[in-house]
Amino acid sequence: MDEREFVRFLKRRFPFHHGVGIGDDASLVRHGDHYQLITQDILIEDVHFRLTDISLPDLAMKALAVNLSDIAAMGGLPEYFYLGLGYPERLGPEELKRFFSGIKKGCRRWGVELAGGDFSRSGQLFIAISMVGRARRPVRRSGARAGDWIGITGPTGESALGLKLLLGGFRDDFFIRRHRIVRPAVAAGQILAGCGVNAMIDVSDGLLLDLERILEASAIGAEIEYRRLPVSARLKNRCRRVGVDERELVLAGGEDYVLLFTVSPAREKRLRQTGLRYHLIGRIVSGKALRVNDGGRPLCLKRHGFDHFQEPPEVGRR
Amino acid sequence: MDEREFVRFLKRRFPFHHGVGIGDDASLVRHGDHYQLITQDILIEDVHFRLTDISLPDLAMKALAVNLSDIAAMGGLPEYFYLGLGYPERLGPEELKRFFSGIKKGCRRWGVELAGGDFSRSGQLFIAISMVGRARRPVRRSGARAGDWIGITGPTGESALGLKLLLGGFRDDFFIRRHRIVRPAVAAGQILAGCGVNAMIDVSDGLLLDLERILEASAIGAEIEYRRLPVSARLKNRCRRVGVDERELVLAGGEDYVLLFTVSPAREKRLRQTGLRYHLIGRIVSGKALRVNDGGRPLCLKRHGFDHFQEPPEVGRR
Repeated sequence: MDEREFVRFLKRRFPFHHGVGIGDDASLVRHGDHYQLITQDILIEDVHFRLTDISLPDLAMKALAVNLSDIAAMGGLPEYFYLGLGYPERLGPEELKRFFSGIKKGCRRWGVELAGGDFSRSGQLFIAISMVGRARRPVRRSGARAGDWIGITGPTGESALGLKLLLGGFRDDFFIRRHRIVRPAVAAGQILAGCGVNAMIDVSDGLLLDLERILEASAIGAEIEYRRLPVSARLKNRCRRVGVDERELVLAGGEDYVLLFTVSPAREKRLRQTGLRYHLIGRIVSGKALRVNDGGRPLCLKRHGFDHFQEPPEVGRR
Repeated sequence: MDEREFVRFLKRRFPFHHGVGIGDDASLVRHGDHYQLITQDILIEDVHFRLTDISLPDLAMKALAVNLSDIAAMGGLPEYFYLGLGYPERLGPEELKRFFSGIKKGCRRWGVELAGGDFSRSGQLFIAISMVGRARRPVRRSGARAGDWIGITGPTGESALGLKLLLGGFRDDFFIRRHRIVRPAVAAGQILAGCGVNAMIDVSDGLLLDLERILEASAIGAEIEYRRLPVSARLKNRCRRVGVDERELVLAGGEDYVLLFTVSPAREKRLRQTGLRYHLIGRIVSGKALRVNDGGRPLCLKRHGFDHFQEPPEVGRR
């Protein structure tokens, strides 16, 4: 059972009658004139992070940030959260206070509050955050329409390169900081929702995989042009020097936490006037396929790291 | 830093401006004519349970039940929940489906729905549930007043005896089932709230410890009479046979998930007319001390298992 099948199994097995449940970045329940959004993300030691790679304050902020990113992806305003913490005794009480200093810093930075939670000792460090937010017009994954522009609010691949460098023994670097420090696009999400974008997701598992999620939810296809993606010279150079495939990182790296959205050409004009920085990287097209071109020619995607995809150059979603 | 100090540290460090945050069974945020309650409990393998002692469906139901019990303790109606699951690969996909069959059974039994969550592989099995509920008049821990009756909706010590038997190598037994199968007192909680009880908590960490939480939140004292506690002949006999101190289990056992409440004598009369089963075990008194009597004489509480308390027979809370 892969992740998609698992989500399908859960959606079938657990219908949700209060609003929109499983299958988007956050659940949606109507409350008067707005929707309440709730999302939950877990981070587990030696699965999502190693304690040798990140300090506890940075880890605490990252745990908050990945949840904030889910609220951002619906165009929501984050409000408060619940923290479930499984904490290993080996780390000691001082480190626990440092962890909470990171939580506090995150609360200040992003204007959210700790509302409750649970604490337990644990073998592995385990962090479960449930974030509550609100939106008047939440943006779902399922609204993409043929003809929409596909936009992205920032570069991808930088966090994944940072992770590769960490795993390769590097200790500090621009890209490692990118990996450690997540900047959730909360303001951008609200601007995008305000301009009426049709579909949105945060890029957590890789650009193509997350784009596929929009396509699957919207039952539609897409064509993107690699050369339109924001890829810095710095990333290109670093990839060349350490011998990793830049396109693999950019297209499938993960943990970017930029927003990927689709917007009608008319509304894109309005969006341009907000001053928000974003890049148009392709179009939503009829059909069910996702095509990636490089200078107009289909890009072959069969590479290490593209485990989610079977058939290059056209990536089927069945 | 013990648990109480830790909670104090968090309350000081993390004020909550949307409603009532850290320090009760669930957070409270006003929504129109009612309050939204949210609680989060985590269960961790080899801390809260051993997989040799409980099946995955029973464990899933227990994870739901302990969260439902927190909603019950505020007099709330549980509605839906978020499940964060760290799942060890060693358990395999069939066991994962069995886990979700337990979640499904719990959803049916208690009328709640799965609204979202997160899934990851993990070394230890880790379950984080955030439960959302509602109440028109939520009952907090802080409302106990001198003269209140102290009531309890069922027996304590049975789950703790079950755990002792499990750890002693027994495999099946009335008390072991009591330990595995939690029955959250959701209906009772709503009846109690409807009758205007002053304070309420669910007994998860032991009768005396949870009573102390009411007393601390209400800045008041209490006197309870051991002989008024509901202790079955079955428990007494079993304790005698396996050589454990019955009173230790009853007073400090934990994981009972019955409701402990305080109610004014006038409202207690109203409560009697509802047909709800409960036991009056003592009174709220002025001062800050918790006294436990046995046949009118102070009970000495200095025993193994009473780690939270320093001074018998009078249990100070400073």
